[in-house]
Amino acid sequence: MISEKMKYFVQNNSALRVMFEEGARLRAKYGADKVYDFSLGNPNVPAPEEVKQAIIDVVNEEDPVVLHGYMNNAGFEDVRQTIAESLNRRFGTAFQFRNLIMTVGAASGLNVILKTILNPGEEVIVFAPYFLEYGSYINNFDGKLVEVPPDTATFQPNLEEFEKRITANTKAVIVNTPHNPTGVVYSEETIKRLAAILEAKQKEFGSVIYLISDEPYRELVYDGVKVPFLTKYYANTVVAYSYSKSLSLPGERIGYLVIPDEADGSEEMITAAGIANRITGSVNAPSLQQKVIARCVDARSDIAYYDRNRTTLYEGLKKCGLECIKPQGAFYLFVKSPVPDEKRFCEAAQKHNILIVPGSSFACPGYVRLSYCVAYETIVNALPVFGELMKEFR
Amino acid sequence: MISEKMKYFVQNNSALRVMFEEGARLRAKYGADKVYDFSLGNPNVPAPEEVKQAIIDVVNEEDPVVLHGYMNNAGFEDVRQTIAESLNRRFGTAFQFRNLIMTVGAASGLNVILKTILNPGEEVIVFAPYFLEYGSYINNFDGKLVEVPPDTATFQPNLEEFEKRITANTKAVIVNTPHNPTGVVYSEETIKRLAAILEAKQKEFGSVIYLISDEPYRELVYDGVKVPFLTKYYANTVVAYSYSKSLSLPGERIGYLVIPDEADGSEEMITAAGIANRITGSVNAPSLQQKVIARCVDARSDIAYYDRNRTTLYEGLKKCGLECIKPQGAFYLFVKSPVPDEKRFCEAAQKHNILIVPGSSFACPGYVRLSYCVAYETIVNALPVFGELMKEFR
Repeated sequence: MISEKMKYFVQNNSALRVMFEEGARLRAKYGADKVYDFSLGNPNVPAPEEVKQAIIDVVNEEDPVVLHGYMNNAGFEDVRQTIAESLNRRFGTAFQFRNLIMTVGAASGLNVILKTILNPGEEVIVFAPYFLEYGSYINNFDGKLVEVPPDTATFQPNLEEFEKRITANTKAVIVNTPHNPTGVVYSEETIKRLAAILEAKQKEFGSVIYLISDEPYRELVYDGVKVPFLTKYYANTVVAYSYSKSLSLPGERIGYLVIPDEADGSEEMITAAGIANRITGSVNAPSLQQKVIARCVDARSDIAYYDRNRTTLYEGLKKCGLECIKPQGAFYLFVKSPVPDEKRFCEAAQKHNILIVPGSSFACPGYVRLSYCVAYETIVNALPVFGELMKEFR
Repeated sequence: MISEKMKYFVQNNSALRVMFEEGARLRAKYGADKVYDFSLGNPNVPAPEEVKQAIIDVVNEEDPVVLHGYMNNAGFEDVRQTIAESLNRRFGTAFQFRNLIMTVGAASGLNVILKTILNPGEEVIVFAPYFLEYGSYINNFDGKLVEVPPDTATFQPNLEEFEKRITANTKAVIVNTPHNPTGVVYSEETIKRLAAILEAKQKEFGSVIYLISDEPYRELVYDGVKVPFLTKYYANTVVAYSYSKSLSLPGERIGYLVIPDEADGSEEMITAAGIANRITGSVNAPSLQQKVIARCVDARSDIAYYDRNRTTLYEGLKKCGLECIKPQGAFYLFVKSPVPDEKRFCEAAQKHNILIVPGSSFACPGYVRLSYCVAYETIVNALPVFGELMKEFR
């Protein structure tokens, strides 16, 4: 009864589903405090108090017909202008409201921009490891995902392999920094090299290649590291942002696209993206949350909480004999599996009530992802269990 | 730079855009009270007070990590169960939470169910006049829209023409009752005949044909008319609902799909629709609004306001010599143009600062749509202007 495309997704959904169900089963059997679930990217730090106050204030202060009503499909102009000005202050950009399109989170933003630009068969390059949903989004528009193998020494993008994979048929490249699943932040040097390669290839092929920057983790960085703002390095950059992590609002589905004036065909793209926002079914980003965001534009969730988790888990796992790049952003550790078949390691962990995600789920086998957006106590209590687990792999 | 598909939409977007811009221009020039804008389906009756209170209560009472967090892609189970029970009480159905999938409004619900079932080239039947966005949604999945011509005597669906158009390649039929743009409510007799035709054709072709009931206007009915609940008449019915109109929350993007257990392949469809909700970019319906809906499940906007508008506008236009079916639901009048080329009538109306939508925008030329979700005073003030306008058409 279901479509051929969906049959594929239903079949490949079951592994993840089994994991969720296993987590629920373990919690029911052993108690939630005896299960160490590092599998989910759901922020455990609550939204800042400003968000709560802003919600109460907007419903008390604003006309409900406007607050809950339709607006331009791209979002309320005042909200978009407020965000544009915040970006301009922080990054020295010169965006106006017209450059911003409010979206139903970054996932919808990515769908909107891919619908805007992608013809069937055109190629979109991604760097392994990557969020496998990129494949679903590209498939929505019958594009072709082209994978660049990882540089496992640094988990910076493998630019030599990247350059080889750009063809006349390359329409876009997706990058994600700070990065899920590795926590790596692309360095300014990396971005300059990436931009130079793209510029040269655009000239070589007489084509336009869009760089899509998926950056829900932009604000989640540690040790004072700076995240370069990509539109400043490469004109054909489109930014997909979400407040899911920075304001701990993943369920609210609120984010935006930035299409800079410098991008080739920007005016037509902006119009098309507004329409794509509508016809993909979003129509517009949720109106109340738009207004809330405008009042909390520079608020942040408590990142220090994640930072303590990061250091504790990183140091603890190292002591257990596990190898890992120390992440500079996001809330993930990407840990080398002690055996090449990382699924074996995940299964062994599960027997100790530890839930972690195999790197194969990010097109990078041999590694496992741990989300540290969990209670600090979960990490403290899990570390001795990791010690026990590792005895089996010596 | 944009995709071929989007080029088409950008070109065809301009007419509507011109109309919006003209409205803004007229308001700036003559003052908002001298412009009679009947072009938009944006509820002007505010959301009921319960909604405001529910928003304040949920942020005060619920854990923000849960309230704003990810949940099952199909939505919070308690919210879905509450809605299922409300439907069961009202319509004598037997839904459980698993039959409901919370969506980003009905537009997203329609996209989700079409993605779930539709293969490229498969046919979806719609009855003229219809909301042209159906064409965009079907096009998203490379389906083929098949149009049934209108029965302009009653604006009930033309079932003789419908029957002729069902083929072995028909995957779905979309109905919309109460109906945009006519305000007609499909009678029980119509629905029984429609169901019988579908049953017979399923047997004839050995196929499954889904009836997709797009019903954002379900609660907007007048004169005590009953809207039959379609799952009770035809097993392969999927309902797409939205709170945009019943609770005046169009900007919030909150609605749901119902996939009944009786539908062929329901279990696989439910799983697939949850995944489609995720990968189309919605991920899930906005979380706070889900919780709000559960607390306002039987609340309604002030429908009496629309009813007064309906009667006043209907009677007033009749006195001006215009012909129209008296609508039983929604908030639209579909009025016969005094000249066959209704665009000429719309242009003439615009010169009087009256904004109305040509029937061609609903695949039904010769008619115009007036939305009466406007201030009552707008109707009272517009009627003499309609009188002036009609002098030009005698």
